[in-house]
Amino acid sequence: MRTVEKALRLLDFFTDKRVEIGLSDLARLSGIDKATVLRMLADMAECGFVEQNPETRRWRLGAGVLRLARLREHAQPVTRVLTPILEKLAQETGETAHASLLSGRDLANIGVIEPARANRVYIEPGLVLPLHATASGIAVTAFLRPEQQERVLARTLTAVTGMTPTSRAALEQVVRRTRERGYAVADQTFEAEVYGIAVPIFGPDGYAAGALAVAIPASRASDEHERKIIAALEPAAQSATTGLGGRPSPEHRISS
Amino acid sequence: MRTVEKALRLLDFFTDKRVEIGLSDLARLSGIDKATVLRMLADMAECGFVEQNPETRRWRLGAGVLRLARLREHAQPVTRVLTPILEKLAQETGETAHASLLSGRDLANIGVIEPARANRVYIEPGLVLPLHATASGIAVTAFLRPEQQERVLARTLTAVTGMTPTSRAALEQVVRRTRERGYAVADQTFEAEVYGIAVPIFGPDGYAAGALAVAIPASRASDEHERKIIAALEPAAQSATTGLGGRPSPEHRISS
Repeated sequence: MRTVEKALRLLDFFTDKRVEIGLSDLARLSGIDKATVLRMLADMAECGFVEQNPETRRWRLGAGVLRLARLREHAQPVTRVLTPILEKLAQETGETAHASLLSGRDLANIGVIEPARANRVYIEPGLVLPLHATASGIAVTAFLRPEQQERVLARTLTAVTGMTPTSRAALEQVVRRTRERGYAVADQTFEAEVYGIAVPIFGPDGYAAGALAVAIPASRASDEHERKIIAALEPAAQSATTGLGGRPSPEHRISS
Repeated sequence: MRTVEKALRLLDFFTDKRVEIGLSDLARLSGIDKATVLRMLADMAECGFVEQNPETRRWRLGAGVLRLARLREHAQPVTRVLTPILEKLAQETGETAHASLLSGRDLANIGVIEPARANRVYIEPGLVLPLHATASGIAVTAFLRPEQQERVLARTLTAVTGMTPTSRAALEQVVRRTRERGYAVADQTFEAEVYGIAVPIFGPDGYAAGALAVAIPASRASDEHERKIIAALEPAAQSATTGLGGRPSPEHRISS
């Protein structure tokens, strides 16, 4: 990995549970020595990507990321397009609806709407969704440009739970099934007790650009509930594709 | 400048008018050779900071910035706190209200509300506000931690318009006046025909963390209008400071 990527990967250690990280912890988490981490942080701080909390001296994401997000949203109003679609989806299914977009090697979770019920799946804001381990990731992988798909299949696949597909053969099988059905399911491959159902969103080139998904407690998974969710997901994903200026793939058809 | 900073500085070339940039243009704008720019873009693309438009092959900001912004907003809900304050400010003054936060060397514009009138100042989303050339920047500089203030004063100050203070002496004078009055004014120092009035927002350490500002067409500038704007800005900035968990500075008092 090159310096720029190494530095930017440091930002992946920030989560909704770990909003500030001390230098030593960041060095330990990344396996990079403290002096190098500090130099990278100083460079990123110059550009506003990180900042040091003046009280705790620990590092956190900087205001620069808000600026870039505003700019990107102005150029391509993704959040504005997807939020009402997610709201409708959460309401129709009674479950947590979320949207993600391809972002480098993985998917970036960019929107979550939770339903008005107590027992629901919580999805942390800004989660990185591995392509091989989530319903959204599988839905995207199945409709990627062939050379991009091959890159995903050829990766070393890490196990997130005991249910994550970790061999190329296992992932190929899931991807094939997803192409046939037009939607992906993931039974606890990313988190225990969470069952995900996802449909791809297509970009202007007719290949997957992201996914819309519904996450349910695994205890609520049933054929009937799944059919209802897919029936809500299909038009939602079509609206998302159209709303984002994409073009559906002729090879994508849902058959449940 | 080091590699990481050089790479991240490439992102500054994206604006609301230039949402996609081709490789050659990016090389020309940055003064870095094409092969190096391409390598940096590839590294940033791996992390989702940029992506290539599959249709035009040009580069644009990636979905990764949306993810990081969601995470930062979850950790510190700045936009949620500032939006109602800006709405009230725009309504009370009948002018464009905007908020910015310190972000590396400069200020990041993170929110704008325009008033309901035709002749108003347009502020582009995600604008970078130089500390020496804008009312917001001056308001912040005047209440920075001394060593940070010295760093700003010691910089090479570029002229944005013919009115921008470009010598250390000129900037020191503006900063001194701003400390006395508690607010900053900038008469066309950043853009012709735009007059800005700004008050600092303070962080938890009692030093400036950002600014609230009102931008008006220079033709509407008058003592009376300015007094009215400052009367609206003062409580707005106090709410912003408190809402963001900051602590006002004992040295800050508005005397118009």
